[in-house]
Amino acid sequence: MQPSDPQGQDKLGPAAAFTDAERAAVYRAIHSRRDVRSQFLPDPLDDALVMRLLQAAHAAPSVGLMQPWDFILIRQADTRARIRAAFQAANDEAQAMFHGERRALYSTLKLQGITDAPLNICITCDRARGGDVVLGRTHNRDTDLFSTVCAVQNLWLAARAEGVGVGWVSIFRDSDLRRVLRLPDHVVPVAYLCLGHVRELYTEPELQAKGWAQRLPLDQMIRRESWEG
Amino acid sequence: MQPSDPQGQDKLGPAAAFTDAERAAVYRAIHSRRDVRSQFLPDPLDDALVMRLLQAAHAAPSVGLMQPWDFILIRQADTRARIRAAFQAANDEAQAMFHGERRALYSTLKLQGITDAPLNICITCDRARGGDVVLGRTHNRDTDLFSTVCAVQNLWLAARAEGVGVGWVSIFRDSDLRRVLRLPDHVVPVAYLCLGHVRELYTEPELQAKGWAQRLPLDQMIRRESWEG
Repeated sequence: MQPSDPQGQDKLGPAAAFTDAERAAVYRAIHSRRDVRSQFLPDPLDDALVMRLLQAAHAAPSVGLMQPWDFILIRQADTRARIRAAFQAANDEAQAMFHGERRALYSTLKLQGITDAPLNICITCDRARGGDVVLGRTHNRDTDLFSTVCAVQNLWLAARAEGVGVGWVSIFRDSDLRRVLRLPDHVVPVAYLCLGHVRELYTEPELQAKGWAQRLPLDQMIRRESWEG
Repeated sequence: MQPSDPQGQDKLGPAAAFTDAERAAVYRAIHSRRDVRSQFLPDPLDDALVMRLLQAAHAAPSVGLMQPWDFILIRQADTRARIRAAFQAANDEAQAMFHGERRALYSTLKLQGITDAPLNICITCDRARGGDVVLGRTHNRDTDLFSTVCAVQNLWLAARAEGVGVGWVSIFRDSDLRRVLRLPDHVVPVAYLCLGHVRELYTEPELQAKGWAQRLPLDQMIRRESWEG
């Protein structure tokens, strides 16, 4: 359908910078957000709060306004136990890929809170949504997956503001997640998230706090005009 | 290196929910952020502001704390002209993939602000960073690309709070971007962004305002326990 104002100029509105206090709140969410594995409280998340998080995710940018995401909410103990078993199988394989001291340290890391967190959400990407030819996806087929990740990050930051911790669990065999969640072939499980209220968070990335890796200096990642700049 | 507190418990700090005003600011950034193509003002972005945006991006979560991103800042008119030409070549191909009324409407859409915006940033993913075996990337090789997208979304939301518009241009042949930006093979150009101060933004997604696509109802995207739920 063609609107009466094809240039959509009537849909423009003022967009000033935020106040200092508002801006500080946005940066606080960005800088204090953590990938949570162990700090989840068992209290359930109320439905209105969950809807605010999903609305935040749904406000993400998407290529061609494709909105390829779906949100599978997982609360039942039985489903979470099966997901937990799928994680364990993959994590045993993962651990064997490290050697010596790294393997020993890896074995001490808690990398998921699937059964501790009261809510899990799998955010998927429906690669068939919007048809075969999607505006903006014509030259990079993966841009729909990237849109879905933007939704994940929106949800994650909203959750921080709500006092809710989020952990992204990525150690699964794809086939296991597909089987437990009954995903059709055209749907990709992009992010498996654990969510719960938290009272404490790490003040730095947990993998740094536990000696696995260090934050890198930003100034080494800034280049000018080209990779060589 | 192993810290003296291997469980890192001394790095935990209090993490309450934000105040109502802070929380509203985070949601305001999320819901009023737009993909900007035409509203850029020519004023340069000052260095301190650009650094705040890059620090926000660098605070993103990353698989195994891999931090695979780099930021190529592009300001020179010559570089932007070459990128603009690369867009045009790809966009001519893209337009030909649509037919009839859709092609006519596509041809009226402005899909980039490469030479209008005073700053372009290409955010890349270095797939070799952190070595061959990366914690959390063992079972999905694309999780480093996803981490890079989280950095993009952090920057985008921070920019909104700063009164800066951001547009993600995705219509390029990969080989053209690699040639102009001199990217090595192990580095993927994930997002090509145009940035500039804005006074106005669309109050809804621009592709909806211009009749290309509609926002989908969130309640149709929420499932329970499995895809079929």
